[in-house]
Amino acid sequence: MFPGEKRDDLSSLIPAALAGDRRALARLISLVENGHPEGQEALDELFPRTGKAHRIGITGAPGTGKSSLVSRLALFYRRSGPDKKSKKVAIVAVDPTSPFTGGAVLGDRVRMRDLAGDSEVFIRSMASRGALGGLANSTAGIVQILDAVGFEVILIETVGAGQSEVEIAHLAHTTLVVEAPGMGDEIQAIKAGLLEIADILVVNKADLPRADLAARSLKSMVAMAVNRKNGSRNETHLEFQGQSAPDRSDWVPPVIETIATRGNGVDELGKAIDAHEQFLHQSGGWVKREEVYLQAEIESRLRDLLFEQWKKTFSEIGFQDTMKAVMDHQLSPRQAVEKLLMGRNL
Amino acid sequence: MFPGEKRDDLSSLIPAALAGDRRALARLISLVENGHPEGQEALDELFPRTGKAHRIGITGAPGTGKSSLVSRLALFYRRSGPDKKSKKVAIVAVDPTSPFTGGAVLGDRVRMRDLAGDSEVFIRSMASRGALGGLANSTAGIVQILDAVGFEVILIETVGAGQSEVEIAHLAHTTLVVEAPGMGDEIQAIKAGLLEIADILVVNKADLPRADLAARSLKSMVAMAVNRKNGSRNETHLEFQGQSAPDRSDWVPPVIETIATRGNGVDELGKAIDAHEQFLHQSGGWVKREEVYLQAEIESRLRDLLFEQWKKTFSEIGFQDTMKAVMDHQLSPRQAVEKLLMGRNL
Repeated sequence: MFPGEKRDDLSSLIPAALAGDRRALARLISLVENGHPEGQEALDELFPRTGKAHRIGITGAPGTGKSSLVSRLALFYRRSGPDKKSKKVAIVAVDPTSPFTGGAVLGDRVRMRDLAGDSEVFIRSMASRGALGGLANSTAGIVQILDAVGFEVILIETVGAGQSEVEIAHLAHTTLVVEAPGMGDEIQAIKAGLLEIADILVVNKADLPRADLAARSLKSMVAMAVNRKNGSRNETHLEFQGQSAPDRSDWVPPVIETIATRGNGVDELGKAIDAHEQFLHQSGGWVKREEVYLQAEIESRLRDLLFEQWKKTFSEIGFQDTMKAVMDHQLSPRQAVEKLLMGRNL
Repeated sequence: MFPGEKRDDLSSLIPAALAGDRRALARLISLVENGHPEGQEALDELFPRTGKAHRIGITGAPGTGKSSLVSRLALFYRRSGPDKKSKKVAIVAVDPTSPFTGGAVLGDRVRMRDLAGDSEVFIRSMASRGALGGLANSTAGIVQILDAVGFEVILIETVGAGQSEVEIAHLAHTTLVVEAPGMGDEIQAIKAGLLEIADILVVNKADLPRADLAARSLKSMVAMAVNRKNGSRNETHLEFQGQSAPDRSDWVPPVIETIATRGNGVDELGKAIDAHEQFLHQSGGWVKREEVYLQAEIESRLRDLLFEQWKKTFSEIGFQDTMKAVMDHQLSPRQAVEKLLMGRNL
């Protein structure tokens, strides 16, 4: 830490972060990331200031060039946002393959340094710890802090190959799904899943052979999905409160070709993101997404806290007895849980 | 469904599945996958028969050739297991990029058909629905059913690019992490994370340039990890009960080169898996892993059930009031959860 600092004093850290002190901001974020109670206090105090940033999720398989695209988008917002004024930009890299988080090709490292020299750009990499569930929660907290201290655009980079990107997608107002030509056959299945969360589809590396084919194939998938949707009710994945996913019925995800390493197509992509933001504001989708996002966080926190509370009530011996019965295959895990929750061991 | 069947009658489905009826088995699995109460009943009834199968997890980034390797391993166990007798093999594909779950290269499709024609091989693809948390739970259930009906080797294929593979790793006695040459720089960060869960490292596509380099680099990572481990206590990721991860201190993960498309190295890999199984039995690691695996399932089920129970107690109006305060940024999500759990709205 820096000289003279003995402990984390929120009453000075928070005003410093709000005034633009990057070390104070980084410290606050670390407190949140490490699940420190002071991080939670900071979140409570800063929460009233949140709700202004445009949260943009960028997801796709490793090797599609997401990180280069993220760098280009950051530069785009710094130099000429869609409304012609420069915006404060934060990058949160959740993707363990992102150059922002670790190994990088030289080109990206250089570009990162360009961004890092800009005091209105903040870059944060999430440590992927392998802890269950924790990543989505701490990402949400970090994004709230960045929002509160005035970052207007928050780019959240995640890897698109499993379930975590769906969790993270709840964070974003606008979700970009990035593809690259030539990975087509192999990731057909991913595409189908990611299409459900995509607001904008990007075919990056558009200078590679078969880029047009990839773009056409995505466009026809979008057309099919739109037809399907018009013929049936939206399905929803959020189980909580029967709250349905944001209504996308009037938004047809555009397919945009880019060459991130050279910057081609990035202006068009920026305009598409802007159009989506406008659409959300006009359709009421912005508020809906805020609601889904905050409900998802509340549900996740409820689950954690309910489990913590329960742990305090059970007896260690009773638990070990139940566990032994499961190990002996006399009780199934479900029956064990039923027994533990019946309070017979308390 | 098949003719004459009106409803799912567990009293006939379960004996049929145990007698080797594949349609009955597939039906049982669907009941579990869809979270149907009868699936749960079947799990309770079959659980006493579980605990015999060797659960082998195969994980790695898309494009490393995991699925071809899984097919080859299945053929290996069918034709000549390490103990020279053929074993019943099940494949569970959780990886959305796996040919078993969707898009495939022609070669894999053909090989899959070979396997599918073998009545002692069962292949099941998990639908990746994007539902939070659900995948690991239903995978655990499906694996238990396969174990109970007598599959001796269960190959569980997952994509290694985030957190889900860690969850799934809890299921496996033996975890294979698959790499391919040339993806080195980009996935360095993944490697570091996956190394923690790897019992055996595989460099597939060993005919590609730089395969030796990839193998050497993995071997040196293993050596460094072993040195680090000897100098410090094992860290653990499982928060429940302070139960520590299986002790790997006497097992040094071997690095094995394979060319799955041609079958090269698969015998050696099979022997390494067998050696790991022997090690687990001799060191007590097998029982430890059963315990970690069952505790993880119990914890996950406890969390779900505690949340379901809580949902029944809260008033809809109280919740909506709290949610409105969060949307108005008067309460942070954490404060909202505190309020909901204080019972003030009940």
